[in-house]
Amino acid sequence: MDDTVDQHAEDVTAPREIRRLLVADVLAERVVERLRVVCPDLEARVVPEGSLSNEDLAWADAYTGFQLPENIEGSSIVWVHAMMAGVDALVPVLRLLPRPVLLTRTVGDMPRKIGLYVLTHVLGHAHHLAEYRQQQAVRQWQRLDPPRMRGAVATVLGTGEIGAGVAGALRGVGFETCGVNRSGHERPAFSRTAAASDPDAVPPDSAVLVNTLPLTPETENSIGMSVFSRLQDALFINVGRGATVALDDLHTALKLGHLRHAVLDVLPIEPPPANAWVWDHPQVTLTPHVAAITDAEDVVRALSAALEDLRAGRVPGNAVDLARGY
Amino acid sequence: MDDTVDQHAEDVTAPREIRRLLVADVLAERVVERLRVVCPDLEARVVPEGSLSNEDLAWADAYTGFQLPENIEGSSIVWVHAMMAGVDALVPVLRLLPRPVLLTRTVGDMPRKIGLYVLTHVLGHAHHLAEYRQQQAVRQWQRLDPPRMRGAVATVLGTGEIGAGVAGALRGVGFETCGVNRSGHERPAFSRTAAASDPDAVPPDSAVLVNTLPLTPETENSIGMSVFSRLQDALFINVGRGATVALDDLHTALKLGHLRHAVLDVLPIEPPPANAWVWDHPQVTLTPHVAAITDAEDVVRALSAALEDLRAGRVPGNAVDLARGY
Repeated sequence: MDDTVDQHAEDVTAPREIRRLLVADVLAERVVERLRVVCPDLEARVVPEGSLSNEDLAWADAYTGFQLPENIEGSSIVWVHAMMAGVDALVPVLRLLPRPVLLTRTVGDMPRKIGLYVLTHVLGHAHHLAEYRQQQAVRQWQRLDPPRMRGAVATVLGTGEIGAGVAGALRGVGFETCGVNRSGHERPAFSRTAAASDPDAVPPDSAVLVNTLPLTPETENSIGMSVFSRLQDALFINVGRGATVALDDLHTALKLGHLRHAVLDVLPIEPPPANAWVWDHPQVTLTPHVAAITDAEDVVRALSAALEDLRAGRVPGNAVDLARGY
Repeated sequence: MDDTVDQHAEDVTAPREIRRLLVADVLAERVVERLRVVCPDLEARVVPEGSLSNEDLAWADAYTGFQLPENIEGSSIVWVHAMMAGVDALVPVLRLLPRPVLLTRTVGDMPRKIGLYVLTHVLGHAHHLAEYRQQQAVRQWQRLDPPRMRGAVATVLGTGEIGAGVAGALRGVGFETCGVNRSGHERPAFSRTAAASDPDAVPPDSAVLVNTLPLTPETENSIGMSVFSRLQDALFINVGRGATVALDDLHTALKLGHLRHAVLDVLPIEPPPANAWVWDHPQVTLTPHVAAITDAEDVVRALSAALEDLRAGRVPGNAVDLARGY
């Protein structure tokens, strides 16, 4: 339950000679343009998504995109840089390759962006925006309780870079921040932390519960009634991965009042099927996976930092532990 | 256009012997209870709103409440402490009294509270909360532009304590903050300031315009097309006083696209008449004067600070200049 890799860096293969990079997906043109300035001695080439040509397969040392090329196995690629932070779709493929491939990822400005997304929804609920909108619609003018954020408890599942960004944003408006991670180790942005294995890890007085966990076999469906039933009238926000949440349990938790509202930026299937209950449940806010949209600048910064590490013989700080999955 | 009084403190009468305080209005009980602890040598007595009894009239040196007693002229009260920050309703009455009365006001935690209120609405618009809510209602899943706040311009009318609280909150999420005040003097929370008399005071590229002005004969109806017509697609937020805004001009500015939305926490008449256009205009958000609700703690802190100043022979920092009106 910790999406940083600091502790696991040792066992990652670190290829040192990277000269030729293939760049795919929607940001490709802008990434290549920027890389020419930032890493002038790296040859970078835009390729279409999907399958690589035989020439590209033979030419490239490295690849970057949101998705993997279908025929990566036949290539000489030794390093893949993911344009995003959530790498759960890439890990199983790379793990099955007969040769080791280094995977790095883009976190970039996401801790700040996701922190602001969470803050936006937390402030909106504290300030009763929905209730005042309903009042306005019926020409009603009635004061509701003022926001109570100072000293209120916000619990964040996952204390990695993104979790810390969320905690920092909530701390800034007065929340006491509790972090839940694998071992319960302390992290600077959090008032206190607990281990996920501790059944009391999530404080029952949490007014806000934010999920930032990566998707791994261990976290899949892990956020359900065992967590929600501890709470009373809490706001739940998912900015991690959709499939970490047991949606049926979420539905029940809303019905029983453990949660008063759920803000879901990620879902197990995106977009959700047309008949999914989340679309028109009055206590659910959906946004289309926008809490943090990677931009070319983020990718280039992460990629060039990883390249610098590699060339200096260091394991990149943003390397993914393929065995652990994040 | 500056709601602090630092520069004008000289000409305020400073009565030194204050022993007996009347406390009215909804917070009275809690204020008296707290004052017994904080200022044990001040005799404080709860009185009903409206008229004072003959005994109270003769007994009291001082008075605190949201409103003035009807028969204050017949009293020996020399100091009135307003439980709120906006004192426009009190100033004309006190100005007409035959003897000088000191007026102080409660700012307290309002700069922080109002800053958070403004931040809530600014973040909500930047994150397209309304558009995503509409999408959800029709089962649509489409990404809109990510928030653009870094380096965007937010202009704040009024650079006093509340204006500075607003500027600080917006600066924290990356805005460049421009302040407009009477003389154009610099203020710490603002990237730059301009004088209200300067026709170019409000930068045309302001993405956000926030009003924090007090209501005085000079500011009444002063925010109209001369300000709005400079802007394009801006978000306007009024947390100052309702009557400072020319509502017809606001309506026109929304229609012409100078403003894309208006968030009004204050209105010339509260609540607005049932047939007022603001109730059901799709580009208007109304809240019932809740950006900052004074609590007893705020009142006691401001009142005891003023009392300490008075007893030390100083003019209180929160004194109101009756001639200027704020």
